[in-house]
Amino acid sequence: MRIIILVGDGMGDRPLKALGGKTPLEEASTPNMDEVAKHGICGIMDPIAPGVRPGSAPSHLAILGYDPYKYYTGRGPFEAAGMGIRMEPTDVAFRCNFATINEEMFIVDRRAGRDTEGLDKLAAPLNGLRFNSAPRIQVEFKNATAHRAVLILRGQGLSSNVSDTDPEKINVPPLESRPLDDAPASALTAQIVNEFVQASNDILNTHEVNRNRVAAGRMPANYILVRGAGHPPKMHTLMEMYGFNSSACIAEVSLVKGVAFYAGMEIIDVPGSTAGLDSDIRAIGREALEALPNNELVLVNVKGSDVAGHDGNIEGKIEIIERIDEMVGDIWEEVNKEETYVVLTADHSTPIEVKDHSGDPVPLAIAGPMVRVDEVTSFNERSVAKGGLGRIRGVDLMPILIDLVGIAKKFGA
Amino acid sequence: MRIIILVGDGMGDRPLKALGGKTPLEEASTPNMDEVAKHGICGIMDPIAPGVRPGSAPSHLAILGYDPYKYYTGRGPFEAAGMGIRMEPTDVAFRCNFATINEEMFIVDRRAGRDTEGLDKLAAPLNGLRFNSAPRIQVEFKNATAHRAVLILRGQGLSSNVSDTDPEKINVPPLESRPLDDAPASALTAQIVNEFVQASNDILNTHEVNRNRVAAGRMPANYILVRGAGHPPKMHTLMEMYGFNSSACIAEVSLVKGVAFYAGMEIIDVPGSTAGLDSDIRAIGREALEALPNNELVLVNVKGSDVAGHDGNIEGKIEIIERIDEMVGDIWEEVNKEETYVVLTADHSTPIEVKDHSGDPVPLAIAGPMVRVDEVTSFNERSVAKGGLGRIRGVDLMPILIDLVGIAKKFGA
Repeated sequence: MRIIILVGDGMGDRPLKALGGKTPLEEASTPNMDEVAKHGICGIMDPIAPGVRPGSAPSHLAILGYDPYKYYTGRGPFEAAGMGIRMEPTDVAFRCNFATINEEMFIVDRRAGRDTEGLDKLAAPLNGLRFNSAPRIQVEFKNATAHRAVLILRGQGLSSNVSDTDPEKINVPPLESRPLDDAPASALTAQIVNEFVQASNDILNTHEVNRNRVAAGRMPANYILVRGAGHPPKMHTLMEMYGFNSSACIAEVSLVKGVAFYAGMEIIDVPGSTAGLDSDIRAIGREALEALPNNELVLVNVKGSDVAGHDGNIEGKIEIIERIDEMVGDIWEEVNKEETYVVLTADHSTPIEVKDHSGDPVPLAIAGPMVRVDEVTSFNERSVAKGGLGRIRGVDLMPILIDLVGIAKKFGA
Repeated sequence: MRIIILVGDGMGDRPLKALGGKTPLEEASTPNMDEVAKHGICGIMDPIAPGVRPGSAPSHLAILGYDPYKYYTGRGPFEAAGMGIRMEPTDVAFRCNFATINEEMFIVDRRAGRDTEGLDKLAAPLNGLRFNSAPRIQVEFKNATAHRAVLILRGQGLSSNVSDTDPEKINVPPLESRPLDDAPASALTAQIVNEFVQASNDILNTHEVNRNRVAAGRMPANYILVRGAGHPPKMHTLMEMYGFNSSACIAEVSLVKGVAFYAGMEIIDVPGSTAGLDSDIRAIGREALEALPNNELVLVNVKGSDVAGHDGNIEGKIEIIERIDEMVGDIWEEVNKEETYVVLTADHSTPIEVKDHSGDPVPLAIAGPMVRVDEVTSFNERSVAKGGLGRIRGVDLMPILIDLVGIAKKFGA
């Protein structure tokens, strides 16, 4: 028995006037998702709890059966893990942006104009910086996709209880990192962050890459914004929790890959998957099908539906949903339905009108050999609410699935 | 964006043979509530948890997002707050009844024949009593609506862990208050309560008001029954919890007003609202509409439906529901539907056949600009169970609403 969970990131939405009161998922042509719903049991799922607006990391933690309030330790360690950076329990990781700051030290662009040229060269001298104030603390800095980067502080005596330097808006100066409690470790960590930011600003300002960018009339990537401090979570793997012998994850963003890493899943990268609207989604489906025979659980996350939601892009969201539907069709056609549970859901809603995550429940369908098939025949936010699953929470999903595949332990006699 | 929550107190019920198997809410003509349901998303709500019979205070705490098991500290402090009495954390409040006791010290009537004449004069000499056994403890006693009153003990070294003197039945003697733990504060508090009851009985027996009542063949209000000891709860306000800049509550009973007080809401009194079947319910609606432009959240509680339930008064319950429906119509017609969420619900069921609160879930409808409108077209206990909200709990309501109005914080990235 196997499980494949297909997550359309931010796929849920709210009714739109522009669509005559339909949601993008209701408007899109999704014959394959509807087919899964028809052969499955459906319901609505609060990724965390009713009304709670989840980030993708807490939501995927919950979907994999981990209490997000216990295991979500901050964005930094999940991004880092998703980029393949291994951390010790005492290390602290931060999510960073390359940004542009002017001479008055005001933030001009939080993403350095989304201009990625030379960012790898700019990242290199920041990696391995040392500070006299804390000579035993090692600094690791690595650029990630686009304007993103990760900062890891390694050593004893560090704390994740420090504030962000990223004010999350422009035309203001960046913030100083401050300790959020009285522990010496928090004071030390905030100090190192501030020293790193200062030193990196000096290095970046004079770097050849930035001199060339400025000469060409482009924004320099001359500042590092730092946020989301966290130690790595101490998580049992899916094997330890449920007895899965092997599991794999295909995700387009490092945040979700990081969740999968801590859950002990194999991370599969798919050429052509871009985390954008241009991603090769069917390639993701093919890789998932290829991974399925060797894994008892495969988790797939497609990012584009969330991107379109954040951008308020109705047409884009509908199109990406229809392309996810094609992937669902490829998978549904190929899987051995006698021994596979196919799960369709979203990690949260990213409504077009909100342009950010909302706390609405997401649709859920579980098709497979032993489910109590209900009368739902289409897969969308409203149709599934009449389904046999009722309203469940994200952390309920994995117990339901391991029970269906027959590896759940009995409670008591 | 604004929210108005309309609570029909005890409005839920169970099917009645006398109504051909319908509930009063199903039997009543409620075109306006049905209209809200038609434009909204519906569901059933367990005020506390499935099967739990809630008092109105715990239920309203939950509806406002407070864990009732944590914040419901007893009836006394909520009644007191609802009467405008401010308490220090060390004070203990009790809900009291004026009662009638005979010469054998047996309770003849727990409400002194519901005869309110002169109760203010009877209350006056009880306020400010002092006891030699605890000279530093101040006593405040204040009569409330009808036979009700509140006793506050003020000072250090008091405990709320003492038993009631009200046996909640007649033809028995009242009880002594006893300490419910070994703390000296509990022993002291019980002792003061007993001394207060004794002293007040002496004063009331000889009071001119009671001599006149007896001479006229009416019951003397010669005894104070004491129950519901509690310290005031330490609650964050709705502003602190959710960021509401201003909120207001219209309620007919001090218990609900007390919940609103601790939540930091403005309490609006409505002339003509009586908490009975004769209440001017449309006046309540007009005041709510007037409050709405100045408040991001308005909570309205109409008491009559609960009163009719306690009395087993089928016709009265149907009539009051129809009058609540008129109020709903006034509000629904007037509110700006582009920026207002209208919420219909009850705080609990008070079934005609039970004559008390039951643990049945209550109907819920949320109408407003961005809800996923479902196919429910009438508002009653059974119709809404097919709605898009499924089954939620009271404490889930406020997170859902603050997500809809766009002030919910995101959990993680």
